[in-house]
Amino acid sequence: MSRGLFLTLEGGDGSGKTTQAELLEQWFTAEGRTVVRTREPGGTDVGVEVREIVLHHRGDIAPRAEALLYAADRAHHVATVVRPALARGEVVVQDRYIDSSVAYQGAGRVLDAREVRSISEWATEGLAPDLTILLDLPSDVARRRLDGARTRYDRLEAEAGEFHGRVREAYLALAAAEPDRFLVVDATLPVDDIHATIRARVETLA
Amino acid sequence: MSRGLFLTLEGGDGSGKTTQAELLEQWFTAEGRTVVRTREPGGTDVGVEVREIVLHHRGDIAPRAEALLYAADRAHHVATVVRPALARGEVVVQDRYIDSSVAYQGAGRVLDAREVRSISEWATEGLAPDLTILLDLPSDVARRRLDGARTRYDRLEAEAGEFHGRVREAYLALAAAEPDRFLVVDATLPVDDIHATIRARVETLA
Repeated sequence: MSRGLFLTLEGGDGSGKTTQAELLEQWFTAEGRTVVRTREPGGTDVGVEVREIVLHHRGDIAPRAEALLYAADRAHHVATVVRPALARGEVVVQDRYIDSSVAYQGAGRVLDAREVRSISEWATEGLAPDLTILLDLPSDVARRRLDGARTRYDRLEAEAGEFHGRVREAYLALAAAEPDRFLVVDATLPVDDIHATIRARVETLA
Repeated sequence: MSRGLFLTLEGGDGSGKTTQAELLEQWFTAEGRTVVRTREPGGTDVGVEVREIVLHHRGDIAPRAEALLYAADRAHHVATVVRPALARGEVVVQDRYIDSSVAYQGAGRVLDAREVRSISEWATEGLAPDLTILLDLPSDVARRRLDGARTRYDRLEAEAGEFHGRVREAYLALAAAEPDRFLVVDATLPVDDIHATIRARVETLA
């Protein structure tokens, strides 16, 4: 049995995480691996309820409450989905993980990034990804992509463009601090080029 | 304007917290104070949604997720209800606070009590009660009271009697560690005697 692999995708909305997750899943499946595609928040039944509160609650949620709700979703998701899949030797391809909380809640908002990370590490009993793929997109490109899609913005997406810029900087700083765990890819490149870059790195792990 | 007062009631289910909170509210109101009666979990609209997940979700919730959900409820409650009331000089009479999490989640379950406390302290930015009233009831008495009431047990209440015993021991240890903050009252005494004991202590604060 192959060993389990835990891959996470990070980046702003519109950076192409879903597309790259699909291509990764197809490739691993063709290689004979079992893939679990999942996401945070909302990757479990408990998480769906938590996500509903966080994204669609009417009125403000206190910043610490929001961070703790994301951490609760994460704790349940890791304990009931991610760790069991890794224990079975499967490949977990996950949209967003701790880096999202640190980038969005810590750097983007009013909370201390180290504290936010430390709560997520407690939530997950320190489970780190084997590889984190950061799809890096300049804020103005991200904004144009979202506008083009005419998506109904949820609460986070409706925040100002300046916020996205701060999140991007936070992501790049996280990648710079852990170059062995991160693969940073230019998300303005063609989809297939991005996939090839990711696959080349993944092949060194699998 | 009087200074705000933050009073919390702790103890197992059936120990009489609701009755004593009512008597305290009546007394403070007669003294001309404005009282906010509240509780955790579920003291806010966000908290009601969180409480619904914690108490009535079908299937298990990972222990760390449950602790983080309680902490999220607490963060929102303290930021939007408790601190504003205290800032207005009001009296907050609250059913359950951090000590409940430490006693139930920490000592009663599988988590480290210091870690559970530290997450709640982060959630509340360190807000401590002026006084915590522990209504102490031997486990066998608590069980008989609940059986007598024929309450439909929720998920926590349905746990074994041994669990209640561990919670009681944890509460008593917390009280012993902070004698200045805690007032421990024998909850088998008559209701009016308990109220008189509490009032005597509260009068030294108000």
